[in-house]
Amino acid sequence: MKVNLNGRISEVKAVWYEEPVIKMIDQRVLPEKFQIVDIRDTRELYNAIKNMTVRGAPSIGAAAAYGIAQANALGIDVVEAGKTIKASRPTANDLFFAVNFVLQHRSEAKKYAEKYVDSIVERSRLIGVNGNELIGNNKRILTHCNAGALASVDYGTALSPIRIAKDAGKKPFVWVDETRPRLQGSRLTAWELVQEGIDHKVIADNAAGFLMERGEVDLAIVGADRITRNGDFANKIGTYEKAVLAKENGINFYVAAPLSTFDFSIETGRDIPIEFRAEEEVSEVKGIRISPKESSSYNPAFDVTPAKYVSGYITEYGIFKNTELNRIEDKGNEAIIEQI
Amino acid sequence: MKVNLNGRISEVKAVWYEEPVIKMIDQRVLPEKFQIVDIRDTRELYNAIKNMTVRGAPSIGAAAAYGIAQANALGIDVVEAGKTIKASRPTANDLFFAVNFVLQHRSEAKKYAEKYVDSIVERSRLIGVNGNELIGNNKRILTHCNAGALASVDYGTALSPIRIAKDAGKKPFVWVDETRPRLQGSRLTAWELVQEGIDHKVIADNAAGFLMERGEVDLAIVGADRITRNGDFANKIGTYEKAVLAKENGINFYVAAPLSTFDFSIETGRDIPIEFRAEEEVSEVKGIRISPKESSSYNPAFDVTPAKYVSGYITEYGIFKNTELNRIEDKGNEAIIEQI
Repeated sequence: MKVNLNGRISEVKAVWYEEPVIKMIDQRVLPEKFQIVDIRDTRELYNAIKNMTVRGAPSIGAAAAYGIAQANALGIDVVEAGKTIKASRPTANDLFFAVNFVLQHRSEAKKYAEKYVDSIVERSRLIGVNGNELIGNNKRILTHCNAGALASVDYGTALSPIRIAKDAGKKPFVWVDETRPRLQGSRLTAWELVQEGIDHKVIADNAAGFLMERGEVDLAIVGADRITRNGDFANKIGTYEKAVLAKENGINFYVAAPLSTFDFSIETGRDIPIEFRAEEEVSEVKGIRISPKESSSYNPAFDVTPAKYVSGYITEYGIFKNTELNRIEDKGNEAIIEQI
Repeated sequence: MKVNLNGRISEVKAVWYEEPVIKMIDQRVLPEKFQIVDIRDTRELYNAIKNMTVRGAPSIGAAAAYGIAQANALGIDVVEAGKTIKASRPTANDLFFAVNFVLQHRSEAKKYAEKYVDSIVERSRLIGVNGNELIGNNKRILTHCNAGALASVDYGTALSPIRIAKDAGKKPFVWVDETRPRLQGSRLTAWELVQEGIDHKVIADNAAGFLMERGEVDLAIVGADRITRNGDFANKIGTYEKAVLAKENGINFYVAAPLSTFDFSIETGRDIPIEFRAEEEVSEVKGIRISPKESSSYNPAFDVTPAKYVSGYITEYGIFKNTELNRIEDKGNEAIIEQI
């Protein structure tokens, strides 16, 4: 992704590996600070995923893939390292997919971790190429949370089609849900769009329905943390709300995700484990209390959107309906045979 | 309303009048500070309504009613004062209703302003008595924004049934939408519920759909800023989202409001003027920037919920369906004849 650092444009990835150190953009401190964090062992990686230094399902997967390579380089038991890494967060499928993939090739862990991450970048680019077909000129696209380059090493999932559309000379406009409680929309998606020169406005999550109802949204694209066999998917809390509202207002609602986000071992979204996070994410903003100290909060980090609200799944293999997801599974089986 | 000030319980109203000074709780600084503001002239009142020192449709109406009494006491042209006060905010009907009512009795402005405000308190109490019928034991009620005593001089509109239910020995539980961008839920509703000892949890607005879908919400009650002849209503941004989600999940969704909020001069919600407020309400929290300085925001303060999403209107006259709102109009005509 392009990053403008004091006027100099650099190409940076959300996560990369300089053996034995995993490097990542600290996603907790954007947009005020652009800071790279060094991850030196499995425990640091566990913490970095858990505290959301790195976040976004495909980027978490990339960090986890490097985590196995790192453990191998450090002479640590890679299976134990994989267990620790997998315990960091419960919802995103990519975490488990990536660890399992590299563990299958533990003797060449670094090579396969790099292959995995290169594949994530290429898959993200292809999601953009495929999703670009949905975007006409001057279209107004709503997105939720951050499913951009930060979340997917590069390009993004939901933002990739918008980047490709912009590069193709179209003029996409993005409505950015701020995405409480952690504000990944206002902090990260808006920051990426600034870097790329893509026109956008940030809104309170409460305003998405208003805009849809007034005809100000042409389509919605979001990412996913896990997609089940029937097409139900987990994504950042609030995604379900926006999907219901899109359907109610006749607006197409797309999910953009690579193979690694699909979990064909689970039939429906009912079986996706939902992470609950600290109350302070709701009761505080940047360390400042916004509710009475006597009030407690409730903080589910994800929700599950049933497949019936999804117009299509934008993948590296094309755009599919929920009834066609077996084609992704077939591709997945081939891809695994081809070692991604 | 009960207010616990350093361990001493006081009874305080959101707005009152000590001629020629209008007194009000400063709703901008709760829950950290409990502070009373003195309003000494029409310009100060205009600012206090506009900057939301006082807010909530019925409380705005009360402040406006006192504004005419104050102008009269200060020897200012009351019609001009009324025009200034009405120009403060465009959406809530109570503002216009209250000014017009007191202007009809300008020779006894103080007496009629007090009658008006006493009537708002009694109407709010009756909304509670009527709405209490909807609340069983241990019910979990979702509310949005603040439609409590702060918004309605005392008792509240949406919160009044919950107060009355609690006093009747029921054990209501409230899911409090934090209500971005101005956080009236986490700041004001949560504060009121703490004062009253009513069990509650604050949630990100994005989590309301999740809770509904998981069967964690028994009913929803919200306030209103303006209700039109067909039952469409304007309320705080995000209300429309929650109403659509309630219907989608088979959850009853009620609007609680007194006569002064009904605008029978307007047929549908399409004709309600929507206020847009400063971008900084979205891009900052407590003065701290949360989006890139290069990103602009979009901040509609209200949305309009079509009548088809409303299970009923909880009023001082009873609970009505949208097809029965002519009965409120009839009551209104009688009430105006009786000078409220």
